[in-house]
Amino acid sequence: MSLPNDPIERLIALLARTPGLGRRSARRAVLRMLMKPEETMLPLAEALTAAAEAVRPCQVCGNLDAQSPCGICTDPRRDRHLVCVVEGVADLWALERAHAHHGLYHVLGGTLSPLAGIGPEELSIQPLLRRVEQEGVTEVIIALPATVDGTATAHYLTDRLKPADVAVTRLAQGVPMGGALDVLDEGTLAAALRARRPV
Amino acid sequence: MSLPNDPIERLIALLARTPGLGRRSARRAVLRMLMKPEETMLPLAEALTAAAEAVRPCQVCGNLDAQSPCGICTDPRRDRHLVCVVEGVADLWALERAHAHHGLYHVLGGTLSPLAGIGPEELSIQPLLRRVEQEGVTEVIIALPATVDGTATAHYLTDRLKPADVAVTRLAQGVPMGGALDVLDEGTLAAALRARRPV
Repeated sequence: MSLPNDPIERLIALLARTPGLGRRSARRAVLRMLMKPEETMLPLAEALTAAAEAVRPCQVCGNLDAQSPCGICTDPRRDRHLVCVVEGVADLWALERAHAHHGLYHVLGGTLSPLAGIGPEELSIQPLLRRVEQEGVTEVIIALPATVDGTATAHYLTDRLKPADVAVTRLAQGVPMGGALDVLDEGTLAAALRARRPV
Repeated sequence: MSLPNDPIERLIALLARTPGLGRRSARRAVLRMLMKPEETMLPLAEALTAAAEAVRPCQVCGNLDAQSPCGICTDPRRDRHLVCVVEGVADLWALERAHAHHGLYHVLGGTLSPLAGIGPEELSIQPLLRRVEQEGVTEVIIALPATVDGTATAHYLTDRLKPADVAVTRLAQGVPMGGALDVLDEGTLAAALRARRPV
């Protein structure tokens, strides 16, 4: 797509590509920023450049960070025997915000999808097996999405991890917090019922 | 507000200040951009810097443009006898997108608001009167918002423009295109009825 030459129109067109911002919001945002360009536009431009230059995938787990190995992989307080497998960095960040996992991560980079031509070679599965084998991992937590592809990938991973001496677990399925039962799908309800627990 | 030092968190915090983007959308956008930083983040950073450096208010009409006087004020095809008065640049851009005005503009920079302490001196009223007097303007179209402050400002402007030999008009009020009657407020309906026209 060619961009307009006029600096305002060019900025609007580029900002409108941001997921979540349409052309209309981008225009409003640019207009607001142009009221105080030194305080809004220049710091944002610097932050974009700094992030683009500094941030790279962690060579160990695939997380995005300004250092590689990333801050999580190098944190001595994290449990190195526990590795949580996620589809992408967004899921890793979501788990970090929940402050519930004190181990390491492994970003697969997707899920298996024969229809989209994504086989085991396209994902970071071999590096995961190598980590499990060489780094004394005792438990692999599979935190993949509960979709068809995610479930198939979880099965595949479980199979591949069988030869290794490692416990394989997956996230519990059930009713989300604050979730009303009547809007939940039948699959989730059935899973929650099967996995019921004593109060 | 202090900003985090980590380049990713810093970028998210700055992007989240964009009107229309919350923290959640900013995080998603940054994650998406980090997949292709050279193609998304660097051009946006350059466009922000270029716009911040080049764009300034037009010394004649108050429009924001990379040149002053702006592209509209210097366009020889525009009717220099016709000046449309708007509250802000957003309204000017909206009228330009409608391709309905072929004259010039004058950005007031707000509306009179005694409660907010905005008097005639805070707005670009004196420069408007000077333009009308010195530049052969024959008609001033008042395109201020149909709010209480907007209407009061329109009245004030009409008064101040009386000594000058200039026609003063305002935008028609009525039913918006595609607008259902039953959701319109009574004021608009009454105005539309009073200003009814033969079919």
